[in-house]
Amino acid sequence: MERVMLAHGSGGRLSHELIISLFQKYLGNPHLNQMNDAVLLPGHEKVAVSTDSFVISPLFFRGGNIGKLAVCGTINDLAVSGAIPKFMTLALILEEGLLMDDLEQIVKSVAGAAAEAGITIVCGDTKVVENGSADKIFINTTGIGYVTDRFVGPERIQPGDEILITGTIGDHGIAILSEREGLEFQTPVRSDCAPLNKLIDTFYVPGVKCMRDPTRGGVATTLNELALQAGVSMLLKEELLPLSPSVDSACEMLGLDPLYLANEGKALVIVAAEAADEVLMKMQSHPLGKKAARIGKVEEGKPGLVLLETFLGGKRIVGMLEGEHLPRIC
Amino acid sequence: MERVMLAHGSGGRLSHELIISLFQKYLGNPHLNQMNDAVLLPGHEKVAVSTDSFVISPLFFRGGNIGKLAVCGTINDLAVSGAIPKFMTLALILEEGLLMDDLEQIVKSVAGAAAEAGITIVCGDTKVVENGSADKIFINTTGIGYVTDRFVGPERIQPGDEILITGTIGDHGIAILSEREGLEFQTPVRSDCAPLNKLIDTFYVPGVKCMRDPTRGGVATTLNELALQAGVSMLLKEELLPLSPSVDSACEMLGLDPLYLANEGKALVIVAAEAADEVLMKMQSHPLGKKAARIGKVEEGKPGLVLLETFLGGKRIVGMLEGEHLPRIC
Repeated sequence: MERVMLAHGSGGRLSHELIISLFQKYLGNPHLNQMNDAVLLPGHEKVAVSTDSFVISPLFFRGGNIGKLAVCGTINDLAVSGAIPKFMTLALILEEGLLMDDLEQIVKSVAGAAAEAGITIVCGDTKVVENGSADKIFINTTGIGYVTDRFVGPERIQPGDEILITGTIGDHGIAILSEREGLEFQTPVRSDCAPLNKLIDTFYVPGVKCMRDPTRGGVATTLNELALQAGVSMLLKEELLPLSPSVDSACEMLGLDPLYLANEGKALVIVAAEAADEVLMKMQSHPLGKKAARIGKVEEGKPGLVLLETFLGGKRIVGMLEGEHLPRIC
Repeated sequence: MERVMLAHGSGGRLSHELIISLFQKYLGNPHLNQMNDAVLLPGHEKVAVSTDSFVISPLFFRGGNIGKLAVCGTINDLAVSGAIPKFMTLALILEEGLLMDDLEQIVKSVAGAAAEAGITIVCGDTKVVENGSADKIFINTTGIGYVTDRFVGPERIQPGDEILITGTIGDHGIAILSEREGLEFQTPVRSDCAPLNKLIDTFYVPGVKCMRDPTRGGVATTLNELALQAGVSMLLKEELLPLSPSVDSACEMLGLDPLYLANEGKALVIVAAEAADEVLMKMQSHPLGKKAARIGKVEEGKPGLVLLETFLGGKRIVGMLEGEHLPRIC
């Protein structure tokens, strides 16, 4: 009998298969089938909605905790869809025995991140399950935003567009991994977990065609999805990928590819070539975008193909994440 | 060190203390502090929102499963707040190893309940945690509705109003309990799990002042909340409480008070005395309201006091649920 596997939640290939074979089969409708991280409410096109559950382990890590993450993750899904995040719901599933002090820390972080992003928590729910029936705390947040005149989406991507990222990649993935495995780096890696809405307000111009936050599955999986949806190829250059020295050495040591590591405070931005300089400058003017960089180009070619030009000048195919890289990364 | 207890999720007194000592302390704002099951979005008063997580065990029971419950629960929170439910998000947390067939059944039930209620699932999220880190499946649904001119809320409740319920009480609680404990009744008890929006469309008239769905904590806890918010007393009559024979005998056998048992397809409706006959007749004309009944009256008296006149003519105080009656009932 077929069973759910960890990789069904990876954000990679098996996740997509589950969505198509089960969720689209029974629940399918034009809004759900867009498979975007946020949707416009049909017939009420001024409101955008996004939902996300957070099951990260450990709960506390360098640069944040599950509470901060739960706010940032949902805000970012709305912000990259072109909406202005305004409201959020907060639903907690608690394991009996969770330390009240830990819960208090987490709720404080929710409040801090909500204030930083300028959103209001409008309703909530709390359930408690017996010891052993959950792992400490799971959080669901649903975000609601106002739709702006920022028309972004994969359908706008064209050959010739440039691919930008708002900063270094893989920080969240390595921060969680090192917390779990007790790895020590000379400069400890902090998760990049942050709300992106104000950064996006800073750099957005009409030449911005599409934005995504490369969380589970990383830059590689997100670009594969976009290339497929837009029917284009993409070419990345390895030498252009912004990496912190600690993430770089951790990846080398552990044999990990930073393109597949999760980010929780970065946006991938596809922009018309003529607007790329301006957008990049504006990104770099914001504290969260100092390390922003061009990392590649959109090209004609096989739809859905993502290639990486390596340091040595060769090209290799960058596929979607297969299996589960790091379970419970968000 | 203080720890989270099951009763913090009961919907009773400890739940309320947690909300006040932690959630209102850090996240408090006028919308959240209303402690209603659904809120109007500030500055956008045409949209109402509600969120709920479902952690019920067992997943499958007579009359429904966690998927149907997750849709009905959120629709009902919106409908009793006077909104017309329109959209829903669906977020799943799956335990590695969950049978794919069970997941398919649940998703099918989500689709069936959504169709019955006439709502659209607009976005979703799936996370998978390791075997042992969750109990099979938890579901969060966030519902979004349009606000109507149905002005309902505890602030409208006044002495002299009548208290109606749309049908028998305690069915969901007994259905889950008998499933868990393997109890057999001559007529098996089915959960009343159902979407209430169309029933409410049938009976609503402007004389309806307040509606609530008495889920966790039952009729007793819900009426305590309302009596407190409205600053009134309430008097119930035991002989008027509609009970199915099986629930009645189960409660007697097990020493349970049906006033504290969960319902998942019932509305408590406070209505102006002069409109009570009309509302009751309209309720009874709908398949989900056949057993609707008057159960008591709103009175002047100590704010927050709920009394029950027993079969023997005495009166006893009906307090809020203390501790946890039946964990994971929804």
